[in-house]
Amino acid sequence: MNTQTPFSPGRAIDLDQVPQWDLQTEVLIVGFGAAGACAAIEARQAGAEVAVLEVSGDGGGSAALSGGEVYVGGNGGTDVQREHGFTDSTEALRKYLMLSGGPAADAERVDCYAEGALQHFNWLREQGVPFKGSYLPGKWIEPPTDDTLLWSGNEQAWPFSAAAEPAPRGHTVQFTGWGGGKVLMQVLCERARALGAQVHCNSRALCLIRDDAQRVVGVVARQDGEIRYLHAAQGVILCAGGFICNTEMVRRFVPTALDCELPVTGGNDDGSGIRMGMSVGAATLNMQEHFATLPFFPPASLVKGIFVNGRGQRFINEDCYHGRVAHHVLRQPEGRAWLLVDNAIFGRPIIQEDIEIAAVGESWEEVEAQLGLPTGALVQTVAEFNRHAAEGQDPYFHKSTEWLRPFSEPPFAALSYCKGDFQGHAFTLGGLSTRPGGEVLDGDGNPIAGLFAAGRTACGLPRWGEGYASGLSLGDSTFFGRQAGRSAATQNH
Amino acid sequence: MNTQTPFSPGRAIDLDQVPQWDLQTEVLIVGFGAAGACAAIEARQAGAEVAVLEVSGDGGGSAALSGGEVYVGGNGGTDVQREHGFTDSTEALRKYLMLSGGPAADAERVDCYAEGALQHFNWLREQGVPFKGSYLPGKWIEPPTDDTLLWSGNEQAWPFSAAAEPAPRGHTVQFTGWGGGKVLMQVLCERARALGAQVHCNSRALCLIRDDAQRVVGVVARQDGEIRYLHAAQGVILCAGGFICNTEMVRRFVPTALDCELPVTGGNDDGSGIRMGMSVGAATLNMQEHFATLPFFPPASLVKGIFVNGRGQRFINEDCYHGRVAHHVLRQPEGRAWLLVDNAIFGRPIIQEDIEIAAVGESWEEVEAQLGLPTGALVQTVAEFNRHAAEGQDPYFHKSTEWLRPFSEPPFAALSYCKGDFQGHAFTLGGLSTRPGGEVLDGDGNPIAGLFAAGRTACGLPRWGEGYASGLSLGDSTFFGRQAGRSAATQNH
Repeated sequence: MNTQTPFSPGRAIDLDQVPQWDLQTEVLIVGFGAAGACAAIEARQAGAEVAVLEVSGDGGGSAALSGGEVYVGGNGGTDVQREHGFTDSTEALRKYLMLSGGPAADAERVDCYAEGALQHFNWLREQGVPFKGSYLPGKWIEPPTDDTLLWSGNEQAWPFSAAAEPAPRGHTVQFTGWGGGKVLMQVLCERARALGAQVHCNSRALCLIRDDAQRVVGVVARQDGEIRYLHAAQGVILCAGGFICNTEMVRRFVPTALDCELPVTGGNDDGSGIRMGMSVGAATLNMQEHFATLPFFPPASLVKGIFVNGRGQRFINEDCYHGRVAHHVLRQPEGRAWLLVDNAIFGRPIIQEDIEIAAVGESWEEVEAQLGLPTGALVQTVAEFNRHAAEGQDPYFHKSTEWLRPFSEPPFAALSYCKGDFQGHAFTLGGLSTRPGGEVLDGDGNPIAGLFAAGRTACGLPRWGEGYASGLSLGDSTFFGRQAGRSAATQNH
Repeated sequence: MNTQTPFSPGRAIDLDQVPQWDLQTEVLIVGFGAAGACAAIEARQAGAEVAVLEVSGDGGGSAALSGGEVYVGGNGGTDVQREHGFTDSTEALRKYLMLSGGPAADAERVDCYAEGALQHFNWLREQGVPFKGSYLPGKWIEPPTDDTLLWSGNEQAWPFSAAAEPAPRGHTVQFTGWGGGKVLMQVLCERARALGAQVHCNSRALCLIRDDAQRVVGVVARQDGEIRYLHAAQGVILCAGGFICNTEMVRRFVPTALDCELPVTGGNDDGSGIRMGMSVGAATLNMQEHFATLPFFPPASLVKGIFVNGRGQRFINEDCYHGRVAHHVLRQPEGRAWLLVDNAIFGRPIIQEDIEIAAVGESWEEVEAQLGLPTGALVQTVAEFNRHAAEGQDPYFHKSTEWLRPFSEPPFAALSYCKGDFQGHAFTLGGLSTRPGGEVLDGDGNPIAGLFAAGRTACGLPRWGEGYASGLSLGDSTFFGRQAGRSAATQNH
């Protein structure tokens, strides 16, 4: 609830409550992050007048704090993929994205993206986004170098590898170290401004305005301490991020995310975009889903360890994307899980160097006893793992050969991933129900006139924590931001 | 989308589109099932004029097809509980309901229910609902007799048993066999009519009507083929059920329920109530959750079997409520799970007698090989289970002693609960966000004037498939239907 004004995102106002228009434009975009900037570029290129409201002092949004990875491929492969020997079919990308979207994957959106992803990568370069074009092999959370291409998801891990021909699809903006997102956003924001989008920073959208025909025709905003009424002749595009910063919404809609104390956000993912959509009858999708991760590597050697739960059971192939592993860790009974290692692969995870070592012993019997597990529970699991790993196979979890190695060098240890012993990172994956073109849909599945959404405000390609891959959010927000910008600019009404 | 009229539940109309009022009342209730009937009784008793719209030819809703179990207790125990030696504290009931609500449990709603449940049971009897008062021990899906009290949830199963002092709380309407719900609904519907509620059957609510101040003031309905405009001076209460009959909504909001082919419904859970709520800005909660069950017993001897997945791992204490077991079965990797039995406990589940026997052998090695599991996977799990069961313990899953027995009598067999081999039963658990008093809340958590909801149209006590217990739906819908009726009748505006 907004305490400074009578306006509240969850409640739209009617046109007859508007005293005057303080600004008139054709396409009004709420939020100048990745989705908003791309929507602005496309809407301007389609010839529409564009105004952007950004709550913070400058553009960039949460995307500017990201690693700058964009998940693209298909169509035979981007030139970068092909240069490094990876062909990538549209069908492989499509299959991968469907699996990655989980039970609620949106086939229409996936098709649209798989077909357009290569062209979209070229479009980003045309806007001026730099990609070095080099390839970085290995397993990373984000690239520590300025290289472009890397394996950024579950492509090589079962069951994804069995369902879709693997290819590396993380295309990272050229920037040395973690943080290519700020380069991406500098380029896209400058481009939008250069094309003539009118950007209003320090401007908070308070609620939507609806006309007699229930069409969304504008936004009430607070700018410089004043309430302003902004008219949008063609439509409003909500690109205001997710809701991980809004603890009240997290508690209400996705309470499991409370287990992760570190929000992944630029600071303004307050759910106001989603609430504005709800206020005019929009349906929300997947509000209970979130991304979570526990970056248990690097060092990559830790991927050769095995996770077990309080029953001594393994539960995941550890060579999956870290976020997928995290979701499996987080759901273990009584919040108990450990990563088992031997001396040869031991290292402290660089993102949480003070990880608790819950047990150390010269034998697995000792480790088992220290963890308080039933006699034999851990010993049997390790023996079974070792036996198969020595043969280069993992018939239970299908961990790939590259990461299979029997434990042989004592001491043996268990790193604690029990509830309370780790710091989880999270952002929300639920949002407004939209068409691929950005049109926001009501409960019946019908579009709400004048309203569009993209980025985390919409429920996009990334909608299943277990299937997330780095680069999916930026891929989704830039690609579908563009679609929304074009739809709003070109629709007839 | 409604194809016969321009009206659609997902889109409310404004007051100025109403040509005339065809009916004027104070409290207008959509749906004459358990929640609607109880709302009508309370609203009438609070002195309000009440009209009820029921889409089918008679009242009862999905509740009339149910087993007629009401989940009540606390406050030292109902007279039935006490008579049979069970004390039941409000705190035990509260703890149980919080655990049963899962991560999104609503403490305010739980408190309200735990404190009022005993009194509510007495209220149901005062309305004329018959309860025999006898106790049926044992483990049942629904009582085959006309007895009242039974264990209807996870009370005696870990981890519920460890968190809350167990008591049987399923209070079943007197009726021999499955189907006490029809007696319950006959009584409640007659009572509402006797008190003066005007019930309009064969009347479909099409959409809400909202005034200039955005207050909900009525409903557009189709009655006898005519469009009618119905005014509600005090408020509209949506008691129109869930959405398991609406395949399009299931696919969009809770696609995992598609794995269960048998909807649990009276036939009108079409989601129209939820969509009407959304149309005026209501937030929805837990739309991805559903109840599911695979009734793998009776015979109760099957509870002594153990479930294993495609990795040969156990994953649940089989003495849990059948719906909790089902949710664990349904989420096993690659949809593979089997119930292992020996000759002594074998029987065909009476609800699916043609269950596939996936493997039979004189040894577990044979069964393991027939199931195509890695060598040793099943044999080790069974050996570990047998070893502990012989000692009367289950350190891994905490199955209670009553159901622990080592497998000893060949042949051994595996009943298939692999995807495609069973018939699952499902209903939806997501719905409108409401206060315990029934007030429907928008995205910001503020009440929407003039709008109330109860039963499956609201997200109530039952909101987590893994924690569901028989009797929770009727307990929730009758109890919170009453609150909504009273709120609507007595509010000042």
